[in-house]
Amino acid sequence: MRSSEDDLIAAIRKVAGAGPGVLVGIGDDAAVVETGPGSVVLTTDVLVEGVHFSLPSISARDLGYKAVVVNVSDIAAMAASPRYALVSLSLPSQAEESWVIELYGGMKTACDEYALSLVGGDLNRSGELSIAVTIAGEVAPGRAILRSGAVMGHRIVVTGALGASAGGLVVERSGDPSAIASEWGRGLVAAHQRPVARVGEARTLAAAGASAMMDVSDGLALDLSRMCAESGVGARLETDALPVSPWLAQAAGALDLDPLRLALTGGEDYELLATLPGSSVKEAAATLRERFGVALTDVGEITAAGMMAVGADGTETPLVAEGWDHFA
Amino acid sequence: MRSSEDDLIAAIRKVAGAGPGVLVGIGDDAAVVETGPGSVVLTTDVLVEGVHFSLPSISARDLGYKAVVVNVSDIAAMAASPRYALVSLSLPSQAEESWVIELYGGMKTACDEYALSLVGGDLNRSGELSIAVTIAGEVAPGRAILRSGAVMGHRIVVTGALGASAGGLVVERSGDPSAIASEWGRGLVAAHQRPVARVGEARTLAAAGASAMMDVSDGLALDLSRMCAESGVGARLETDALPVSPWLAQAAGALDLDPLRLALTGGEDYELLATLPGSSVKEAAATLRERFGVALTDVGEITAAGMMAVGADGTETPLVAEGWDHFA
Repeated sequence: MRSSEDDLIAAIRKVAGAGPGVLVGIGDDAAVVETGPGSVVLTTDVLVEGVHFSLPSISARDLGYKAVVVNVSDIAAMAASPRYALVSLSLPSQAEESWVIELYGGMKTACDEYALSLVGGDLNRSGELSIAVTIAGEVAPGRAILRSGAVMGHRIVVTGALGASAGGLVVERSGDPSAIASEWGRGLVAAHQRPVARVGEARTLAAAGASAMMDVSDGLALDLSRMCAESGVGARLETDALPVSPWLAQAAGALDLDPLRLALTGGEDYELLATLPGSSVKEAAATLRERFGVALTDVGEITAAGMMAVGADGTETPLVAEGWDHFA
Repeated sequence: MRSSEDDLIAAIRKVAGAGPGVLVGIGDDAAVVETGPGSVVLTTDVLVEGVHFSLPSISARDLGYKAVVVNVSDIAAMAASPRYALVSLSLPSQAEESWVIELYGGMKTACDEYALSLVGGDLNRSGELSIAVTIAGEVAPGRAILRSGAVMGHRIVVTGALGASAGGLVVERSGDPSAIASEWGRGLVAAHQRPVARVGEARTLAAAGASAMMDVSDGLALDLSRMCAESGVGARLETDALPVSPWLAQAAGALDLDPLRLALTGGEDYELLATLPGSSVKEAAATLRERFGVALTDVGEITAAGMMAVGADGTETPLVAEGWDHFA
């Protein structure tokens, strides 16, 4: 006799499959995997219903996809390569098996896209839905880029566009049918529900001499302040240079939102924030555009101390480290 | 300005400290660690309030300790060595910072005891308390012992005693002050709240030629049936040979419990269940007793097919794979 928990695990095993380097996958006490000669990179992140997402605003498939990608983004931010994923799923009693299989389907899509294997996990009943994902990756010896390495005089760069994910949340919550159906509305919601992790981009920035790097998950202002605190430096952020998502300008006409504020303090962009020698920025930007079709924008400079925001007219004001804080 | 989430992380960093092989610990996007030339072993397990524990029945310190040990047990069951731990903590808003620090203190104690380092994690607000721990360990190439390797004719062995953890839960829930204060009551509750992972014992069993191994986390009957299903074999379990926790006999006089039933179907014993060639059992038992002061008991035999329980009088009855099932 197999238990119903075992039945669900058997179904998940079929979705997960095996992959390169997986010696023992789902089904034993632990997974056994191979890694290269470098260092192992480990990260974990949880998505909790009502905190990080609400149902049914997001589909099971998108939710599974996102739960993996936000962790891949943390591995990418070290200039490392994701290899293996573990998932701890806590399910309320009303969750349907078909929904759970869709969720794992979304995880599998993300695993395939980023070339990693789902190798294990844990299933539990609980009062609320939560998905804890852990990813193990690898990086060549000494090649991880830390957030603590920012150097005075280096330029501050960000990939892609900022604020779209937070804008997507505003669109979702507006309940405004024409906003939700508009091209910009769909673009913003997609940015929120289907984020992109910058794995190749991060390795390109590392090769270009990035001194520090992290992903922007809690808002640029807060994350930059964390990078500066870890590095013992300051920053001058040129707010008019920020690559604000162009959809936000369109959204601002229809909904009550401030594009610059969302770009500065909105969370879950999963873009890369890095510091580069000024001489490398132009070439790194060209490579990123060519290889990945992704913009790299110079948004300021690392200074000796203090966090300042510089406006278009040159006025400096203290940069407030606002952003997503679970405990504020 | 640092956020309150960052303050809590800073406090946790102080508790966690660094350790051998940790190149980047708590505080960056991901941890960077070194592993040996063998394979990496990965496992994750969550403890959810109301499902796996109830407050204030268990102290923050014991809870943190247990959350780590149940994962160490999964690594041990592969005959591997635990090295690095990640913790994803979801906290209800009423949780106090001092309680959280105690929780991490308990994790630290377990990490120190089992020689692993706490290298990263994630903090979230949520409606209910849950602690997801992931452990990365290592094992020499080809040396992991799987649950799928059981061989017909091999003896079935278990370490230590069974049923004590489930008995501790009965004592806790009885609310009976004299039971709780008794020596057996305290012993049973301690078995539930402060489980032991059999890391060295597992390596000894591997060296003795174990063909299959797993930890008993959901009850012997269910876990043995899982091992047999993965191995494509059957088992004859001699129920009168089971090492039932001696405290249960004492408890049975005072509380309404069935020692044999708890030993067969009670969860969370975290003892090892292994299969060994008959010729190795005696010496393996002597080594375990000598090195660790832990008993190894021969409880039956692997057969071609079918799960049977054999009583003291030789009668065979089908062994029902009952036990802890989150989805039953």
